[in-house]
Amino acid sequence: MRLYTKDEIQHAVRLNTTVIDGIESAFTSLKTKKVAMPPIMRIDIPANNGEVDIKSAYIEGYDSFAVKLSSGFFNNPKLGLPSANGMMILISTTTGEPQAILADNGLLTDIRTAAAGAVATKHLSREDSRTVGIIGTGSQAKYQLEALTHVRPIDQVQVYGRSREKAEQYKSFIEKSLNMRVDIKNTPSEAVNNSDIIITTTPATEPVLKAEWLNEGQHITAMGSDAEHKQELDTNVLEKADLVVCDVKEQSLILGELRSCSNSKLINQVHELGEITSGLKPGRTGYNQITVCDLTGTGVQDTQIARYAYQQLNFKEDDYNE
Amino acid sequence: MRLYTKDEIQHAVRLNTTVIDGIESAFTSLKTKKVAMPPIMRIDIPANNGEVDIKSAYIEGYDSFAVKLSSGFFNNPKLGLPSANGMMILISTTTGEPQAILADNGLLTDIRTAAAGAVATKHLSREDSRTVGIIGTGSQAKYQLEALTHVRPIDQVQVYGRSREKAEQYKSFIEKSLNMRVDIKNTPSEAVNNSDIIITTTPATEPVLKAEWLNEGQHITAMGSDAEHKQELDTNVLEKADLVVCDVKEQSLILGELRSCSNSKLINQVHELGEITSGLKPGRTGYNQITVCDLTGTGVQDTQIARYAYQQLNFKEDDYNE
Repeated sequence: MRLYTKDEIQHAVRLNTTVIDGIESAFTSLKTKKVAMPPIMRIDIPANNGEVDIKSAYIEGYDSFAVKLSSGFFNNPKLGLPSANGMMILISTTTGEPQAILADNGLLTDIRTAAAGAVATKHLSREDSRTVGIIGTGSQAKYQLEALTHVRPIDQVQVYGRSREKAEQYKSFIEKSLNMRVDIKNTPSEAVNNSDIIITTTPATEPVLKAEWLNEGQHITAMGSDAEHKQELDTNVLEKADLVVCDVKEQSLILGELRSCSNSKLINQVHELGEITSGLKPGRTGYNQITVCDLTGTGVQDTQIARYAYQQLNFKEDDYNE
Repeated sequence: MRLYTKDEIQHAVRLNTTVIDGIESAFTSLKTKKVAMPPIMRIDIPANNGEVDIKSAYIEGYDSFAVKLSSGFFNNPKLGLPSANGMMILISTTTGEPQAILADNGLLTDIRTAAAGAVATKHLSREDSRTVGIIGTGSQAKYQLEALTHVRPIDQVQVYGRSREKAEQYKSFIEKSLNMRVDIKNTPSEAVNNSDIIITTTPATEPVLKAEWLNEGQHITAMGSDAEHKQELDTNVLEKADLVVCDVKEQSLILGELRSCSNSKLINQVHELGEITSGLKPGRTGYNQITVCDLTGTGVQDTQIARYAYQQLNFKEDDYNE
């Protein structure tokens, strides 16, 4: 068993179409294969405003699976440290032996989360989507946008963030790295207006997106809420949408946007992303539909990206050994 | 973060009274401190007769806690591999940062499990206990006996195992390493007869110990059952006992000896080990009582032993650096 550092992993793993296709197949496997994906294990450390989550999933037929530890300690920034930490452990499904420690510090989670956004957008947004409205300026605001460029011809971004300074940093980063125009907006509604795709990527505990700002034909990916106290979408967004999709209903009802929804008829009609990627249910069926996808994060994504990273790392090693 | 190998850990950690006292305090903390100990996460890999368990516990006031992965893949012996694998990850409760990977391959679990047996025996067996009857010849049969020597004046062992060859190996190992006499018995009842302390340490799925074999004053530690399909004690053993104790009732009812017991009055009277170590409830109160302790394994033990190992490893490192 070897420990791989974030630096090694960063050099080996890129957010590309192979990764996005892999994450798509992980969602499909939730509906087409036997999958063991236990509920998230969570340990709260209230004394230090911290939490550790443990996720895992075994997909039938795969020769390995991942156990992921991820933590958020929200006093860390005061100590000059990032709030997030994490690692993945890849385990052989043949013998139970640990194959690798991927000490990625959350990098692979960032990549697999963004890839899920791309998968959702590929099935739910209009094919001619060019403009993205982003609420939030954190690392997922960057990764999600990069992932989108692999599935839609994006060439313009409208961003809103509570901190003007961070919005400026975001603009500068994206304009350099992805070579597309970024407009900083003063309100979330301005970021939403005329966007083909809207991404909410905030730790908000109260809605940052309202139904009255939406136009026909828009797609929304909400990936911020992953805990009992978080919410990004006003429930009237779900009511207004023609199609509501989530990654795992059971999780979204506890940790995601479905938590705040009391309309049981609506909840019954929600599709899971794997139903759409597997072809069991249709995605977008009309140009003017409003579509929503709520992502809370799943163990199958972790198993998929950890396996991919391990393959890439070993391929690179072989390369170096030539 | 550093990865420590089994070899390094083996050199740094000994099964001694410090470890036993630490495990005792871990049980006490379950009753006297705020503890976050989520239910065990389990991933089954039926295709390869395998399972992976994840345990964790945070004890208030500690600056770190452990997440433990342990696996049993029961086709491994056919491949020439041990069925068990495992590791512990020590995480800072201040920042969430991983401090160490203890790639102990189950060694620390063996030690903390044996230490729990010693804690139970210290509170529940007669102080003058000299003879131990052991059913089972695996690694815990060795570790449990070694742990007992730290709390009781053990000088004789009666062992029964289904394989005569393994019983011979056990006898030879114990006589050399612990310098005490070991008699191999032909039946479990002979191993039980005249023993002061009885340890069952088997993967049995049907009872290996029956009430009719028991004498007044005996103590039994049953540490084999840790899964829904396992059982070592005939339920009439629990009925006959004057005092039944377990590590965590909720777990014992699902994974341990209480699972097979339908006597709700008896179950109500079962004490948890932490109630006894903390002084909230008495242990043995009479010379002729029959006492039982069922151990299924707890996350607080893992956190305790992982913290101890890390301290020892760093102490050793400092030593080497001098």
